[in-house]
This record gives sequence, C-alpha cells and structure tokens, in this order.
Amino acid sequence: MKSGNSHSKELVFEKTEKLLLSYGVKGWNVNDLAKECNMSKRTLYKIIGNKEDLLYEISLNSISKNINNLKKYLESNSPFPLLLQNLSDQIINSFDKITLSNIIALRIEYPRIKEMGKSKENSEKDFFIDFFQKGKNENCISDNVEASTIHKIVHALIEYHIYNCDNKTEFKNEMKEVLNAYFNGILR
Amino acid sequence: MKSGNSHSKELVFEKTEKLLLSYGVKGWNVNDLAKECNMSKRTLYKIIGNKEDLLYEISLNSISKNINNLKKYLESNSPFPLLLQNLSDQIINSFDKITLSNIIALRIEYPRIKEMGKSKENSEKDFFIDFFQKGKNENCISDNVEASTIHKIVHALIEYHIYNCDNKTEFKNEMKEVLNAYFNGILR
Repeated sequence: MKSGNSHSKELVFEKTEKLLLSYGVKGWNVNDLAKECNMSKRTLYKIIGNKEDLLYEISLNSISKNINNLKKYLESNSPFPLLLQNLSDQIINSFDKITLSNIIALRIEYPRIKEMGKSKENSEKDFFIDFFQKGKNENCISDNVEASTIHKIVHALIEYHIYNCDNKTEFKNEMKEVLNAYFNGILR
Repeated sequence: MKSGNSHSKELVFEKTEKLLLSYGVKGWNVNDLAKECNMSKRTLYKIIGNKEDLLYEISLNSISKNINNLKKYLESNSPFPLLLQNLSDQIINSFDKITLSNIIALRIEYPRIKEMGKSKENSEKDFFIDFFQKGKNENCISDNVEASTIHKIVHALIEYHIYNCDNKTEFKNEMKEVLNAYFNGILR
C-alpha cells in the first residue's frame, strides 16, 4: 500500500473513527490502529504523521464540514423566522456522535486541537452575528438586544451542554428545549 | 487557645480565606495555615479537622449564605418586573471573589464539595422555578416558555461563565450582558 494514497488515508480515518467511538481518545495507540488498518506502523506514520496529527486532521475536517453546513443554512434565502425556528435542529445536528463523545478529551489532551477549534468558532461567530443582525434589520427580533449578545447566549448554551450532558440523546433533548425556548423568545 | 472556641474558628476561617485568595486551593497546606494562625498543627486539627473538612465547611457556609440571600430576594414582595430587572445583579453578587476564583479547583480536588454544591443547587432550582412561575401567573412572562426551561437557561449561562471567565471583572461584565438581555427578552 502506497503512502499518501487517498484511499489508504480514507481507510485510516475510518478505522480511527471506529477506535474513537469504541475506546475514546486515550484508549488506543498507533499500534492498535496499524493492526486495525492491516498496515505496518511505518506505513501508517508515513500516511498520517503521529496520533496528534491524525486527530488534528480528523477534527479539522469534521469542524470545517459542520461549520460550512451551518453557514450555508444561515445564509440561505428562506424567511428569517423559519430559519430561526429550525436553527436548534441545525445546531444539534452539527455535532456528530464521534465529535460529541470525544470533544472534551481532545481539548484536554491536545491543546493544538483546542486552539484550532477556538479559531474556527471565531469564524462561526461572525456569520452567526450576521444572521441575527439580519433578523434585527428585518424587524423579526426585538430591538433591545444586540446580535452579538444573542450569539454569546447561544454559544454559552452550546458549550454548557457539551460539558454537562452524559450522552448524545440527553444533549439533543436538553439543547432542543433551551434553544427552542430561547429562539422563540427573541422572535417578535 | 482552646479548640472548638468560636473565636479561634473564626480566625482560622479568615486566614484560610486569605490563603485561598493568595495561593488558590492547592498552593498551601495545613502547616502554612498553622503558621498564619500562630497555632500548632495539633490545635488546628482539633479545631477544623483536615484541610478538606475545613474547605467543606467554608464552602457550605458561603454557598448557604448566598442561596439564602437569593431566596430572600426572589420571595420578596416587590413587583415581578422590577425583581427580574435586578436579578442579574443579585446573581452576580452571590459570587464573592474567593468563591469565584476557587470554585473550579474545589470541585476538581474535592468531589465531596462538588456534590454538596450540586445538592444546594437543587434547592436553589426550586425557588428559582417558583419565582419564574409567579412571573408567568402574573402574566409578566410569555406563555410559551416553561419556568423550568427558563431556570435551565439561567443555570447554563451561570455555569458557562464560571468556567470561561478569567477574572471577577470579566465574569461580572459578561454575566450582566447576557442575563440582562435574556431577562429583558422574556419580560412581556
């Protein structure tokens, strides 16, 4: 198997996600992954660098994909109230099972991944604020709250639930309850 | 100095708070505290038990005091909209400097203190929900949000800022911004 080959990289990503789901971030090493992929460790290192590089690339891909989906949604042409009403589902679905069950461990173990996540959040922040500002301009949201404050509240609610829900179902249910209540409240 | 003497206990509490402010939860031991109090370690142990017992009692006193103040405020007879408008200040002021700078370390180092805090939060939850329910009954708050959901949002905003603000000033400013915006939003 040649290194750098996109098919083998895809295989490594797939097997890594399997290991992440079964054993979390710390419960496996590059040896285990090599066995899973049926490759030598040497070949594996050529394809993905070390474990941190691999997890960095997987996190970056996943965060970028989720942010792009959200961006597309927020910039779409549907009426603002409709977009706001379905925004909680969009946000919840932007967290896949692998991300949700490993995001805390990834942030603790790999500060570089945490920093990358933060810088991605900053780009997300901008188009969230643009979206809420559009709602204000179209008179759909109350005048006396700033778009940036709405974003701060939404961001805090998301982060709180990432750290305090025990599983995907609880995350989904709690997030749906608080985000829907909040979005309904700001809609005129 | 006699053990159990309430004056000496007061002195120990005061010196402990001084150490907490200067060195955090882990940066001092019972030796340091004994020196600060000008007591033998033996006398100190008789008065306060071990370091965990001492921090537990200090945390319990401080949390109980803060919760009682909030309860008194929420149950007072002022008009609901006025109470809601000043609620963010009440919540912010229920976190003194010592609590705010040590709450995360206390929770991590002493699971018993974390558990106690959680059970105290449960009692706080009840009278927060009663308060928001009163607001709904008096038609001051929108019909289509449950009192318990409002409490969940407020609780998430508080917890998020405890973990993500670097200092008392940032905590105060950010909390004021998001809580005021949220409370203004739910008021009819």
